[in-house]
Amino acid sequence: METFFSFLEKRVDDCSSLLCVGLDPHIPDLKEPTAASALDFCLNLVKQTAPYAAAFKPNAAFFEVFGAEGWTALKQVIEAIDAESKRLGSMIPVILDAKRGDIASTAEAYAKSAFETLGAHCITLSPYLGKDSIDPFIQKSEKGVFLLCKTSNPGSGDLQDLTVITQDGSLSNVYLYEYVAYLAETWNTKNNIGLVVGATHLDAMQRIRFLVPNMWFLAPGVGAQGGELEAALKAGLRKDGKGMLIPISRGISRAEKPGLAAAEIRDQILHIKRELNSK
Amino acid sequence: METFFSFLEKRVDDCSSLLCVGLDPHIPDLKEPTAASALDFCLNLVKQTAPYAAAFKPNAAFFEVFGAEGWTALKQVIEAIDAESKRLGSMIPVILDAKRGDIASTAEAYAKSAFETLGAHCITLSPYLGKDSIDPFIQKSEKGVFLLCKTSNPGSGDLQDLTVITQDGSLSNVYLYEYVAYLAETWNTKNNIGLVVGATHLDAMQRIRFLVPNMWFLAPGVGAQGGELEAALKAGLRKDGKGMLIPISRGISRAEKPGLAAAEIRDQILHIKRELNSK
Repeated sequence: METFFSFLEKRVDDCSSLLCVGLDPHIPDLKEPTAASALDFCLNLVKQTAPYAAAFKPNAAFFEVFGAEGWTALKQVIEAIDAESKRLGSMIPVILDAKRGDIASTAEAYAKSAFETLGAHCITLSPYLGKDSIDPFIQKSEKGVFLLCKTSNPGSGDLQDLTVITQDGSLSNVYLYEYVAYLAETWNTKNNIGLVVGATHLDAMQRIRFLVPNMWFLAPGVGAQGGELEAALKAGLRKDGKGMLIPISRGISRAEKPGLAAAEIRDQILHIKRELNSK
Repeated sequence: METFFSFLEKRVDDCSSLLCVGLDPHIPDLKEPTAASALDFCLNLVKQTAPYAAAFKPNAAFFEVFGAEGWTALKQVIEAIDAESKRLGSMIPVILDAKRGDIASTAEAYAKSAFETLGAHCITLSPYLGKDSIDPFIQKSEKGVFLLCKTSNPGSGDLQDLTVITQDGSLSNVYLYEYVAYLAETWNTKNNIGLVVGATHLDAMQRIRFLVPNMWFLAPGVGAQGGELEAALKAGLRKDGKGMLIPISRGISRAEKPGLAAAEIRDQILHIKRELNSK
């Protein structure tokens, strides 16, 4: 069966990379505070980094802030990634970082917006509303979601670190983020659900990896937020050396040569993986 | 201090209404599956129901699905509400139903998108990422948020009904949704945070009202989702007969005369409030 993660793993093999290039056109990083400038910023990044990108992750917020023009720019960025994929002969998945979450017909409209109107392959979602809010996004196995599990921000503990007891008493004394990982695995019957697990909370990442040995993580926080690459890979990689995407945004976009920066991160990851394997 | 809820309460007094008119241009309800048709649908609803609306709640999903044109339509709908407000001499708040949630500069971009680019006055947010994901939205007291607390959908129990224990042990044996209500109240120092509490879970609504006697609820689920108006008002109203917005979408938009339907719901709420008061 063609699934989102079989599709991602093929790309990971094709480019020997676990790097997910974040496309975050922050206004302070643009030449002008316009959608046209955001588009230029992203197109340049896509062109320079595509050979080293296991995936691209445009963040909806930085496009929405420009209104309708931003929305058009986002669609054009996704089209440019598809064109690069064709040129390289290897499909690069697009993960829309949207952190939406709604119910019933509303969730269906969001799924249609992300996967059909925009053409993304995957989306980030919040788990707070429960399974029926996720269902419309995982109907097609080739489209995927990353559910927020343990996020990279300082306030993530407010809810995610609570100890929970399930109603039927089958689980007790687990963190909410662990329970989300457990639920997500039970929901992942089509191999198209992964987890957002911040690289800034390595204990949590280890606990989650122990619970769900096979799921994919999207692990933000390396670089700008202080997470360290080697420690993160050690805590989160699967035994097969995959299972983890490392999203980097500013560490690449602010580099003098973003293509070179992306290549270097790709190589660092490969080097660390080899070291870990040889131990 | 001018706050979002002082602004909402003024409107509630002006129109003697707790009705929040949902603007959900579902494609099956439109003449054509286009942004122009979604715009017509909403403009007609706004014009007919404004005198009876304590607030309007456009749902971002049904606009996003049309891409950039949908985004333009959403902005035009909000402008039309502002124009109606001026005509009526009473500002009608616009609650953008977006259920976003992100961190740091991303959350700032979403806040800018909702409050500046689009011109909404309030937004629905998920609490899963914690306080720092809410902060950028509550900086200005006149802009507000409704945090998802206990949602109206069947799957809401997956996470929200878990029993939680706080790390410091100060609270134990409370539901996650109760803990969210408790946290939200501690965060609500500027009178601009409310809670989404589904009218389909009346026991939960009563528990939350007991915990936070003064907070505003946005209570979806009356009508289409099976919640009953009288029981919901009984469970959720504050002692002053306010504190609760009843969002209705299809019950109004699918009526032969939406203005009449809105007036009738407004009057039903008034009638039930009087009955409850006289008991």
